Amino acid sequence: MALHVLDLIGIFVFGITGALVGVRKQLDVFGIQVLALVTGLGGGFIRDVLIGATPPAALKDWRYLVVPIVAGLVTFFLHPGIERLERLVNIFDAAGLGLFCVTGALKAMAYGLSPLSAALLGTISGIGGGVIRDLLSGRVPVVLRREIYATPAFLGATIVVVAGALEYDAIWVSYVAVLTCFTIRLLAIRRGWNAPLPRTH
Amino acid sequence: MALHVLDLIGIFVFGITGALVGVRKQLDVFGIQVLALVTGLGGGFIRDVLIGATPPAALKDWRYLVVPIVAGLVTFFLHPGIERLERLVNIFDAAGLGLFCVTGALKAMAYGLSPLSAALLGTISGIGGGVIRDLLSGRVPVVLRREIYATPAFLGATIVVVAGALEYDAIWVSYVAVLTCFTIRLLAIRRGWNAPLPRTH
Amino acid sequence: MALHVLDLIGIFVFGITGALVGVRKQLDVFGIQVLALVTGLGGGFIRDVLIGATPPAALKDWRYLVVPIVAGLVTFFLHPGIERLERLVNIFDAAGLGLFCVTGALKAMAYGLSPLSAALLGTISGIGGGVIRDLLSGRVPVVLRREIYATPAFLGATIVVVAGALEYDAIWVSYVAVLTCFTIRLLAIRRGWNAPLPRTH
Repeated sequence: MALHVLDLIGIFVFGITGALVGVRKQLDVFGIQVLALVTGLGGGFIRDVLIGATPPAALKDWRYLVVPIVAGLVTFFLHPGIERLERLVNIFDAAGLGLFCVTGALKAMAYGLSPLSAALLGTISGIGGGVIRDLLSGRVPVVLRREIYATPAFLGATIVVVAGALEYDAIWVSYVAVLTCFTIRLLAIRRGWNAPLPRTH
Repeated sequence: MALHVLDLIGIFVFGITGALVGVRKQLDVFGIQVLALVTGLGGGFIRDVLIGATPPAALKDWRYLVVPIVAGLVTFFLHPGIERLERLVNIFDAAGLGLFCVTGALKAMAYGLSPLSAALLGTISGIGGGVIRDLLSGRVPVVLRREIYATPAFLGATIVVVAGALEYDAIWVSYVAVLTCFTIRLLAIRRGWNAPLPRTH
Repeated sequence: MALHVLDLIGIFVFGITGALVGVRKQLDVFGIQVLALVTGLGGGFIRDVLIGATPPAALKDWRYLVVPIVAGLVTFFLHPGIERLERLVNIFDAAGLGLFCVTGALKAMAYGLSPLSAALLGTISGIGGGVIRDLLSGRVPVVLRREIYATPAFLGATIVVVAGALEYDAIWVSYVAVLTCFTIRLLAIRRGWNAPLPRTH
């Protein structure tokens, strides 16, 4: 499965999270589409602008536009009851985080960035869409909640970056990296894992 | 009337909306200028960065900087009473939306983007300045209010994109597109038009 | 002392402000690192993307990544008591503002932008990191508080731009510009300097 397929799946699941937040905010169908689009495409836009790959992939290939629109429409018609919305947002968001941190790191390496920079860019790609979604809809940005969020994205990106630095590019490395990020993020939510807090006095 | 004149008028009217919001928030004269600048130039910056036209037009041509500064100063000295501010914001914002969705789509086509991408980029150009203005000033972003907002921008952009795809580039098409977006947006506010809401249960 | 050293110091002090805000919000150690990174690197990312210098310096040179991480860790372990946090944020933020408005303007001139555009880009570089920090952490963006903020940045940038236009590039001009911005900003806070407000009636 090629890089752009993972990218499209990431756009789809992030699009769903945007639309679910829109449903929760009781936006109308167009507002929900806007949130699905910016959440699905935002991380990739930031990634492509930063590495100088403009216009971004999503503006050169119509499938990148159709996917979040479909995600928005599916969510609009088939969303669950209000009480289950937030849990679904978290699950799909974790999937998008895993997919985008990997595709972002791979694309950054393909554009010649150093390993450390590629890992950072993968992390930015992963967290970008969710941050834009939360800023626009007036939620506390997910990276700033007291939850493990950027760290699993950095871990997932690091896995593919290390494999790339060793010139080992088997596709299963990408799958492992996506799953690692996704699993750690979900476990962190379920178990309420906490990182150390600053001391106060 | 050339593309860049429409662009400058768009910057002027969006600059006015930024300054009016600043007046409403009781910012000082410099804060009002900052809001006029970011609102006037924000949509074009996003457009130019996404299509790779950097530095953006506004950083290459001094008129693009003078226009929002004048808009801010005029508004600072001549703004109406508080009670009429919000209505004026809406009217000027609708004009900027119409102008930018058209100039954004035209510029995207000139840079070789596909019709669908050009329509999306026009929409992003149109809504960008207002979103930045609302985020900075702590208002609910205009695209996420339960009002028709992104849709007229997409319609206006689509008109010039379809005409462009048919290689029909008479200037009146642009005027019609601007007016279509502007009129639909204003009617949507006045009449309280609503798009379908998600079901809740 | 070369341009990139001033840049790195700017990243360090802005990184500290981001981390201090994170401590104040009681974020965990990873959330504090995220805020340190986006605040330290945000202004430079915006600058480099706008002038087309992609990938940004911070993604090409590992020192640009290490500096804000160190700033975040130092702040996490050594931050002062809660009651002194806000004052420290203001002081380090004023230092970052002075450093970035100067390095931003110098880099913009090196990329061939006109004097007015270079001054504006320096201002944007200076205020960018703080605005991102405040948006993410739910504070009123510093440019929109009723305080002198963008103006000293514009002054500092103008000093190096005027010197550059006169082809006088002695390094002490940059130091004077940094100090001018820093001093005016701090005096504005201490003395509560106000710019004129819009009339209301």
